[in-house]
Amino acid sequence: MFTGPIQDLIEEFSKLPGIGPKSAQRVAFHLLKLPAEDARRLSDAIQVVKDKVRLCERCFNVSDQDLCGYCSDARRDQSVICVVQEPPDIVALERTREYRGLYHVLQGAISPIEGVTPEHLRIRELLFRLQTPLDPEAPPVSEVIVATNPNTEGEATAMYLARLIGPSGIRVSRLASGLPVGGDLEYADEVTLGRALEGRRSLTG
Amino acid sequence: MFTGPIQDLIEEFSKLPGIGPKSAQRVAFHLLKLPAEDARRLSDAIQVVKDKVRLCERCFNVSDQDLCGYCSDARRDQSVICVVQEPPDIVALERTREYRGLYHVLQGAISPIEGVTPEHLRIRELLFRLQTPLDPEAPPVSEVIVATNPNTEGEATAMYLARLIGPSGIRVSRLASGLPVGGDLEYADEVTLGRALEGRRSLTG
Repeated sequence: MFTGPIQDLIEEFSKLPGIGPKSAQRVAFHLLKLPAEDARRLSDAIQVVKDKVRLCERCFNVSDQDLCGYCSDARRDQSVICVVQEPPDIVALERTREYRGLYHVLQGAISPIEGVTPEHLRIRELLFRLQTPLDPEAPPVSEVIVATNPNTEGEATAMYLARLIGPSGIRVSRLASGLPVGGDLEYADEVTLGRALEGRRSLTG
Repeated sequence: MFTGPIQDLIEEFSKLPGIGPKSAQRVAFHLLKLPAEDARRLSDAIQVVKDKVRLCERCFNVSDQDLCGYCSDARRDQSVICVVQEPPDIVALERTREYRGLYHVLQGAISPIEGVTPEHLRIRELLFRLQTPLDPEAPPVSEVIVATNPNTEGEATAMYLARLIGPSGIRVSRLASGLPVGGDLEYADEVTLGRALEGRRSLTG
């Protein structure tokens, strides 16, 4: 065990997700060797995030403005909303370059075991958005794509949203489950393979 | 990709050793959710380490004083110096509770490939220590235990030190190489097993 400031730093780093005591020690000694201004940049970046970053008041993505970059971008398709659990999911979807609509971040998924009920999520705010467009001239929302995680909590949340939004006539869709591209059928788990079979697509039109 | 402060934070974390872009993102979003004072503790700890922590002027371990805790502890055996590459090696040795002598941190090992020559290491300072005890009343140094890593660089450094210190009559020893305790002979690599054979110890006295 070290003592004093270096041990304090190791302990603070150990509290972060995915950083064990060994990595924390490695990071602390790395910081010790860095030029002062490089270490300062890291500690400042932490403070700036805490001071500046908040949630977009419409979609609950992270933002340093009242509205995030997606909500304030008039060129995006206002008629589709993709519902995700957390802000990093948006980054993954943007990487596909296939989606040009809006987003809505639930800030979690329904999980009775962890005590997360629909009231804890940003579902009320989603319903409000469907009824109240930001730009009255824009086309109304015609589809909600539920992109929650393909696990029990994500599925439960998707089902809940489908039941809630369905009656309004807005289409509710779900991302396809199936074999990951580049994967190996031999090593696919039976649930994924079952879904891939169930969702099979005709190649003959 | 995110933008603004959160992306800056992700990038700063990605620069740390052992933290890839995915972990950096996870850590950044974790910090975003933390109470402000918890995030402040981490950024302050980084600054305190940079402001306060320096190297012990005698053994080059990290310290927040001129002399580190080991060098200033008169109860430790002043006649043995254990030479290590980096400060975390001291922590590993202290965990054994088998060693009560002093330490000397070389700040690396000889590595011609990486351009590290003996002049880059704290070897001159080690020789100075051997000739000049901190406490003139204390017994002189009788043994230098070289605990550099059991790899090419560490071995080269150990050989170099043995040649350098040997003529003075001070004993220079090296940590034993062999099978790790709790390991499995079947899975030992041939170099380790070779060393274990070479260093075998008589059980019959």
